[in-house]
Amino acid sequence: MNKGNKNLAVIGLGLIGTSILHAIKLKFDNEFVTYAYDLNLKHRQIVENLNIADYVVNDIKKAVEKADIVILAVPVGVMGNVAKEVCIYLKKGTILTDTGSTKVSVINDIKKHISSDVYFIPSHPLAGTEHSGPKSGFATLFENRYWIIVSSVKNDKTLILENIFSKFGAIIEYMDADYHDKALAITSHLPHLIAFTIVGTASNLELDLKNDIIRYAATGFRDFTRLASSDPTMWRDIFLNNNEAILEILDRFNKDLLELKKYIKQKNKKELFDFFSKTRRIRSKIVKVGQHEYEDFKKI
Amino acid sequence: MNKGNKNLAVIGLGLIGTSILHAIKLKFDNEFVTYAYDLNLKHRQIVENLNIADYVVNDIKKAVEKADIVILAVPVGVMGNVAKEVCIYLKKGTILTDTGSTKVSVINDIKKHISSDVYFIPSHPLAGTEHSGPKSGFATLFENRYWIIVSSVKNDKTLILENIFSKFGAIIEYMDADYHDKALAITSHLPHLIAFTIVGTASNLELDLKNDIIRYAATGFRDFTRLASSDPTMWRDIFLNNNEAILEILDRFNKDLLELKKYIKQKNKKELFDFFSKTRRIRSKIVKVGQHEYEDFKKI
Repeated sequence: MNKGNKNLAVIGLGLIGTSILHAIKLKFDNEFVTYAYDLNLKHRQIVENLNIADYVVNDIKKAVEKADIVILAVPVGVMGNVAKEVCIYLKKGTILTDTGSTKVSVINDIKKHISSDVYFIPSHPLAGTEHSGPKSGFATLFENRYWIIVSSVKNDKTLILENIFSKFGAIIEYMDADYHDKALAITSHLPHLIAFTIVGTASNLELDLKNDIIRYAATGFRDFTRLASSDPTMWRDIFLNNNEAILEILDRFNKDLLELKKYIKQKNKKELFDFFSKTRRIRSKIVKVGQHEYEDFKKI
Repeated sequence: MNKGNKNLAVIGLGLIGTSILHAIKLKFDNEFVTYAYDLNLKHRQIVENLNIADYVVNDIKKAVEKADIVILAVPVGVMGNVAKEVCIYLKKGTILTDTGSTKVSVINDIKKHISSDVYFIPSHPLAGTEHSGPKSGFATLFENRYWIIVSSVKNDKTLILENIFSKFGAIIEYMDADYHDKALAITSHLPHLIAFTIVGTASNLELDLKNDIIRYAATGFRDFTRLASSDPTMWRDIFLNNNEAILEILDRFNKDLLELKKYIKQKNKKELFDFFSKTRRIRSKIVKVGQHEYEDFKKI
């Protein structure tokens, strides 16, 4: 094997971390020597057996000390602590990125540990499935999905990340952290919050009715149960860390829902029809991106 | 052609009506002579061109006067009026069913027009896609989906419908109208209401931000836009006609959402984690039914 001389470390071996390793193995021609680390021994063993990293190490130091690029793919809630550990060992000139779903809080948590000779470039792949853990990763997860880079400038360092993510098949976008958090609050965090709630409501109703109505779930509810089966740790951390933007969006949603409720109460034919017609048009705006989420959907 | 001597009429040539015609053509061996009618000339022409009915007629009388079985597949809001027209022409012993998504109101609207020598057996196939109109129908729509028959008894008449729907591939369940409306309120109507709302909220936010954030829609929001692109007339009618059950479920949902909001505000780690863990388990309860909705999903 004629491996390249760039070292890349992935810290955190869940869905995102292992998908990155799969993608590097599949899409790069020995350009990187990869190091994989997770606090969880079982996760490391699974990755070892999957044979998707050159070195699966049992010590975070060994994972990052030679690294040219370090990717933190751990839950948002532990980013700060993991960064603190990692940063002690980084060599000069290392590029550090993270894949956290919230950016303002993660950047705050990480940046205080970064020394001036390390390049911290936060990022976020808008990709995922309802499955989690090291067995759930796959090489095409990022194909045709946005990968946000949080940087106000483009330079040779951001370009290095851009090239890697592009080769994974991702579509690169640059934006600032505030805008990211607001956009994600409406397009991802609120939908998941609602899904978690509605599935919980249905569950409570079943208990009250002492009957199993959920099995009648047709299109609609089925989608919600899929969203509501996503990793609880990840989502807890997102709601704790994108708190402000989510609460703001939630208030808007509640206002709109209250209005729709009013129309239902009033049996207001015209307003209901207008409302349901308007939302139909919005669908056409959505970029037609990759297929894997639908493939994944079929596993239900 | 050696057609059988049973006449079956489908009134209303949208997704459900045309899917029924497709399914009869595919799955029955000339057992029925089929009559198709829709108020809309264009819809009739499309069905004529699709060649899925023996007779596409331009007069509701011609569609139903010889019918042994009549299926009303029109929006819930016009069921009563259509039934009124149809019932004038029905011969003695005809079985009349409907496919309406709400049952209490539809039964009230229809039953006053039924004479004593006609058998009215309400039903509801829990099947659909976000597409509507005569071109959206397909023969396998009902495969592995529930088809509810609203009847407190099983007899030779309900058995006739049961046999047809079963041959379409549907799973037959009997229940009463109240229970149906409550079950559908939580498993279908509320999810759609929420989806319509959230897509509207996102759209308003875009206008305020003067920016196109919806294109970042990943899993989650994407599902909602699919639901929110369903037929507006159909959904308006559902919300007008299952009003009471929906408002009751909506109040429960709002209560649960308020609680979750409280936990987010408090940054209550434990309660958030517990809530997100609980809903994950519910998913496993959902019956693993047909694939076509996923196939359809892929058309996005």
